[in-house]
Amino acid sequence: MRNLTLLTDFYELTMMQAYYTAEIKTAQRPEAVFDMFYRENPCGNGYAVFAGLEQLVDYINELVFDDEAISYLRSTNTFSEEFLAYLKRFKFTGSINAVAEGTVVFPGEPLVQVIAPLIEAQLIETALLNIINHQSLIATKAARVCWAARGDSVLEFGLRRAQGPDAGLYGARAAMIGGCCGTSNVLAGQLFDIPLRGTHAHSWIMSFDSELEAFRYYANLYPKACVLLVDTYDTLNSGVPNAITVFRELRESGVELTNYGIRLDSGDLAYLSKRARKMLDDAGFADAGISATNDLDEHLISELKAQGAEISHWGVGTHLITSKETPAFGGVYKLCALKRGGEWLNKIKISEDPLKITNPGIKKLLRLYDVASGKMKADLITLANEFFDEKEHLTIFDPIATWKKMQLYAGDYTIRELLQPVFVNGKCVHKALTIKEICEYAAKERGTLWDEHKRLVNPQIMPIDLSQKLYRLKKEMLEKIN
Amino acid sequence: MRNLTLLTDFYELTMMQAYYTAEIKTAQRPEAVFDMFYRENPCGNGYAVFAGLEQLVDYINELVFDDEAISYLRSTNTFSEEFLAYLKRFKFTGSINAVAEGTVVFPGEPLVQVIAPLIEAQLIETALLNIINHQSLIATKAARVCWAARGDSVLEFGLRRAQGPDAGLYGARAAMIGGCCGTSNVLAGQLFDIPLRGTHAHSWIMSFDSELEAFRYYANLYPKACVLLVDTYDTLNSGVPNAITVFRELRESGVELTNYGIRLDSGDLAYLSKRARKMLDDAGFADAGISATNDLDEHLISELKAQGAEISHWGVGTHLITSKETPAFGGVYKLCALKRGGEWLNKIKISEDPLKITNPGIKKLLRLYDVASGKMKADLITLANEFFDEKEHLTIFDPIATWKKMQLYAGDYTIRELLQPVFVNGKCVHKALTIKEICEYAAKERGTLWDEHKRLVNPQIMPIDLSQKLYRLKKEMLEKIN
Repeated sequence: MRNLTLLTDFYELTMMQAYYTAEIKTAQRPEAVFDMFYRENPCGNGYAVFAGLEQLVDYINELVFDDEAISYLRSTNTFSEEFLAYLKRFKFTGSINAVAEGTVVFPGEPLVQVIAPLIEAQLIETALLNIINHQSLIATKAARVCWAARGDSVLEFGLRRAQGPDAGLYGARAAMIGGCCGTSNVLAGQLFDIPLRGTHAHSWIMSFDSELEAFRYYANLYPKACVLLVDTYDTLNSGVPNAITVFRELRESGVELTNYGIRLDSGDLAYLSKRARKMLDDAGFADAGISATNDLDEHLISELKAQGAEISHWGVGTHLITSKETPAFGGVYKLCALKRGGEWLNKIKISEDPLKITNPGIKKLLRLYDVASGKMKADLITLANEFFDEKEHLTIFDPIATWKKMQLYAGDYTIRELLQPVFVNGKCVHKALTIKEICEYAAKERGTLWDEHKRLVNPQIMPIDLSQKLYRLKKEMLEKIN
Repeated sequence: MRNLTLLTDFYELTMMQAYYTAEIKTAQRPEAVFDMFYRENPCGNGYAVFAGLEQLVDYINELVFDDEAISYLRSTNTFSEEFLAYLKRFKFTGSINAVAEGTVVFPGEPLVQVIAPLIEAQLIETALLNIINHQSLIATKAARVCWAARGDSVLEFGLRRAQGPDAGLYGARAAMIGGCCGTSNVLAGQLFDIPLRGTHAHSWIMSFDSELEAFRYYANLYPKACVLLVDTYDTLNSGVPNAITVFRELRESGVELTNYGIRLDSGDLAYLSKRARKMLDDAGFADAGISATNDLDEHLISELKAQGAEISHWGVGTHLITSKETPAFGGVYKLCALKRGGEWLNKIKISEDPLKITNPGIKKLLRLYDVASGKMKADLITLANEFFDEKEHLTIFDPIATWKKMQLYAGDYTIRELLQPVFVNGKCVHKALTIKEICEYAAKERGTLWDEHKRLVNPQIMPIDLSQKLYRLKKEMLEKIN
């Protein structure tokens, strides 16, 4: 693992030096609260899947300006020796709260809350956003693709088109959190214990004098995982018949065929899969799987399924690993409270666009569930010092269209607090989970949404409301400024 | 640097094992030639900028299956001990030719040519594509953005929105090759000696009681690089007047203002920049720069310039670092010749789509220049054993619309061979260049194109032709197959 301490914007360091000199001058060390949140779901989705926390924790734990970093920074002629000495002994001493990886989340919600000396909170902005933005993007995209596949296996096959090695590596991890069940990426398999999948390429077939010979060689070597790529020459007239010949030979030689089948990588996948299914069935291979690859995304998978395509495994590459339709998540990191000396002051970032105005103050994030169905009803962003009791009725309202109200009756709903401690005063309290545990939790999380929220196009919007107190604070601050 | 040996698709390894067992059985070690090429320019551009070669060379040089890799592969229950022992002693022994980083390139051209034992050539497919696809994508996008900025500085500010750490790091490098003149990414600055740029964030302003106080503090600390962000509260009524006050104070205190100005990050950048320009000029700060950021891309920059925006520095984030419009390059790696025993056999991959049929055989790539203008006229893909003499007339033709011909007269044109040796029989012969050298070469390369080829929308298509011999070979092979 490279050290990522310098994976930050230059202005974070110049601002840090400015904060540092101010601290020396005033003998005060301001503390800050920053919220990481995003404003819009990628790909028009109804929700996002939060991911990347494990890598964020690693990054914070490994923050250290080593000698090389210090001499490089010295060479920019921007920093004083005093400040460089401060960096040399830098250690993150703040607290971080975050939602768990795999949680379904919504625009405007604080997903990571950093409570730390201003100078420390500033440093980690860039890497925090980089890591969380990337993995949350790919996890969300994967959730869409898996939703379209309606229970079929979805495999992440995008490494060659990913935006660099990390995009392939952490993208594969995020894809699992979003619902994929395997990857082609061997490094991701090794580092994150993800199941590996894959068959062979056209070059394998082309390196033999005939397709049948290539299939036969492969089948003999991998009788227990024999998936044959059938479209190198002619899918229905050569590929599928040759595959059937080889499956028959395997069976006759006494191999018990379990994990076997064909892969289609070109042509009309609906038509070809239906024809291939019939040929396989007629030949007595009703349990042979049919995998498909070739520039798939959630929309194409949805359409192919609507047309009755007989595909059991979907290998998704470029569209998933780059989130091609929306290749950036757009998470931001905004100051919402500052303590200089004794008291916390609330901070708000104004904008002409109401959606870009931040929520001030130190907050918490509550999720409200319907007891009868177990489904989520709404999220409520509140001030950290507010208390809500499930045993009381609760009225929530839309913070933009304030006349839209929802009444929750005592006993009908439960409350869950989503932000959980990850670092407390510099100490890591995060319990690392296996990818399997995260995936199980993530699947359960998606299960708390009605299908209406998961629709690929124009999904039902989840109510994300502000508490009365937070709403009032925000309004008062805006009126004071104008 | 992590070891990237396992950054490969699982099927490369299962195919390798199959090749390995075949080699043992036949006592023959087939050699292969693979071409890396792409089929379509990203973002509708008229060309692409080749980038990533340096990282590809590092990857090949560091290929080694260490003990951890071997035990992980063993744990997949897929590989024999004989094959794992082979991997343990694996070393790349092949040859690689490639075009230089920064070269302008076109669809269908062999950009990287791998001539190696089939089993070795197969392994490196995935990482090769990952690295070259990513950096060529971002270099090409950067070239578009810089073209739109018409000589103004373009700064790469996208780290927080990049698809993971590497996407930010190598994306910053590629952006420089595409024409940017600096980055905010400190790690990229350190590793690749790229100039760092940046000012301060809204949080800096918000951490003070007043904007003026925040500006003043910053200006006193960084009088030689004083660029002030003016849109936190009200750009024209607060930000710009406060900035002018501070510039005046700096000047009065005897500071010689050189590298200074303001940054706009919201609102109508054309209107605000023109108004701000006038205010700065009227106050005697005609040499103050105006930087702009906020979701910029080449189209918006083009429009803002057409509307007379007074912006001298463009900070481009999300759109550049993700190539948002087209976030994948689509390079592929195809077998084009195979030697089993004595003789090279040409290989072709067929497809229903004529543009997806590969060019068979071992090839070279020639670039033809017009002597009078120094501009490039066309590229010619030929067989490796063909010879062309500048002292003779040359007729080239379009390989799809074969009646479209171009006549080049002896003396009017020159020929340059683009594929250069990078590895020869496993030995690295690549001369590493500094990023500055690569950028200078890349700028010269773009200078060999007429403006018509650089138009952002609907550019003139560069002729990329096949030699008579290669065209005939391809046609004969296709006719034989059908």
